[in-house]
Amino acid sequence: MSAFNLKGYLEERRLIVERSLKEHLGASTPPVQGRVGKAMEYSLMAGGKRLRPVLCMAACESVGGDSGTALKTASALEMIHTYSLIHDDLPAMDNDDLRRGRPTCHKAFDEATAILAGDALVTSAFHLLAMDRTLPGEVALEVIRIIAEASGAFGMIEGQMRDIEAEGTPLDLEALKELHGLKTGALIRASVEAGAVMGGATSGERDALKRYADKIGLAFQVTDDILNVEGDPQLMGKGVGTDAQLNKATYPALMGLADSKAYATSLVEEAVFALSEFETRAEPLKALALYIVQRQR
Amino acid sequence: MSAFNLKGYLEERRLIVERSLKEHLGASTPPVQGRVGKAMEYSLMAGGKRLRPVLCMAACESVGGDSGTALKTASALEMIHTYSLIHDDLPAMDNDDLRRGRPTCHKAFDEATAILAGDALVTSAFHLLAMDRTLPGEVALEVIRIIAEASGAFGMIEGQMRDIEAEGTPLDLEALKELHGLKTGALIRASVEAGAVMGGATSGERDALKRYADKIGLAFQVTDDILNVEGDPQLMGKGVGTDAQLNKATYPALMGLADSKAYATSLVEEAVFALSEFETRAEPLKALALYIVQRQR
Repeated sequence: MSAFNLKGYLEERRLIVERSLKEHLGASTPPVQGRVGKAMEYSLMAGGKRLRPVLCMAACESVGGDSGTALKTASALEMIHTYSLIHDDLPAMDNDDLRRGRPTCHKAFDEATAILAGDALVTSAFHLLAMDRTLPGEVALEVIRIIAEASGAFGMIEGQMRDIEAEGTPLDLEALKELHGLKTGALIRASVEAGAVMGGATSGERDALKRYADKIGLAFQVTDDILNVEGDPQLMGKGVGTDAQLNKATYPALMGLADSKAYATSLVEEAVFALSEFETRAEPLKALALYIVQRQR
Repeated sequence: MSAFNLKGYLEERRLIVERSLKEHLGASTPPVQGRVGKAMEYSLMAGGKRLRPVLCMAACESVGGDSGTALKTASALEMIHTYSLIHDDLPAMDNDDLRRGRPTCHKAFDEATAILAGDALVTSAFHLLAMDRTLPGEVALEVIRIIAEASGAFGMIEGQMRDIEAEGTPLDLEALKELHGLKTGALIRASVEAGAVMGGATSGERDALKRYADKIGLAFQVTDDILNVEGDPQLMGKGVGTDAQLNKATYPALMGLADSKAYATSLVEEAVFALSEFETRAEPLKALALYIVQRQR
């Protein structure tokens, strides 16, 4: 695995995804204009890691598919992720002023615009998915089903609701894992699963990729919690120590810092193990699993 | 047209749509539970006119299709309409306390829950559309494209943004028509167009139905403004005279009350005329056009 240049791979993929996102924002007729369009662009082009699109394309390739086939879906996933961040940051929700080192959407614009920009991004994502003529109709519909289910009331949204409801009432480890499985895990799994479907995965491959995704989704959240304890605020573009201040249930709070790190590492090992039947095509996914726990932001 | 029993037709269709909505809320595994699910149900089952679903099914039948084929799409349209109402009522948007005579979603629950319930309804609508196995794949995708475009940044959401931006700055008649064409017209047109596509419309029929829909969409809004001047608050379940208090641009304010009524009537005549080539199958659509201007709420 050491031969695989993850940094270059991530950078290349990030640029491809950002070009596709810009194209979709700009190419429609009439072009996205006015306040909502500016707010959509502000949040969408704020420079995230583009992890979900990268995972989607890598999963597609891991089963022998062409990552170009997955590009529109990958872009739609980033739009859905961005919409969830905009809404989660709202005063009525997590009330965050900063995101990726910049004012959150409702701070840079206003609350009404932020709500509408989020609404527009999720709608636009489904529009993009339905317009994807590179996929056979049945595959496109299956991808929409996977993504809509993961981002809806049984996935991401239920996770955010539980997160808000948990304020002030301590969660145990099981409830915390379930919450994260919904709030961040569901869309990460959908990204990988959608990629698998577009790449023409067998049902065995699809199951293996779902196991992989569940493990890295959890590892991602454990690492987020660890970074909130000992990360570099400069690198992360957001505050550190905020979870402890809010007395939030986190892995470090429930398991201790050392055990949380060991847990993240074991999750990554399990994720890599899930792909052991795959050939070298899964190298990017394996490297991504490691990256998820080793990242600094 | 006098022989057509619109009241019975509307009641029958309303019940069919409400059964389908309940089924979709309850049948998923795991069932919609917890706070978000309750808020979705609260707003979705608050008893609207179900105009968009009824239009969608009637349009499908007007070109010889079976209205049962259109039922899932019809339900999804009502979910999207309800989501837009929940978000539009939020304090950061129109800040309304009452909707259909009951507390708005954020008043009955709270703001975070209302935002999430709206998010869940729009996502769930696309999920329902993608799961619709009664339609051929290409038809289902076309329906998703039509609905996503109408409810997105080039349709409903842009209309709501302009409505908010217009506060305090008077609009002229052209700008008002354009705003309504986006805010309410786009989804009404999408409802009719989606019905036409599902019913197997020829391109001539589809164009005629789009002309019909544009006219009734506008007539609907003109009538809304008239009802805000002289409607019965008891029947409408909301306040009257509120537009004038807010100094809002409305048809009665810009054209006078009598001219607004004449305008609504002429729009309905144009809508009915657009369907003159259709046989008796378009009777429900013609009756619906009349109902839109004659309704008391």
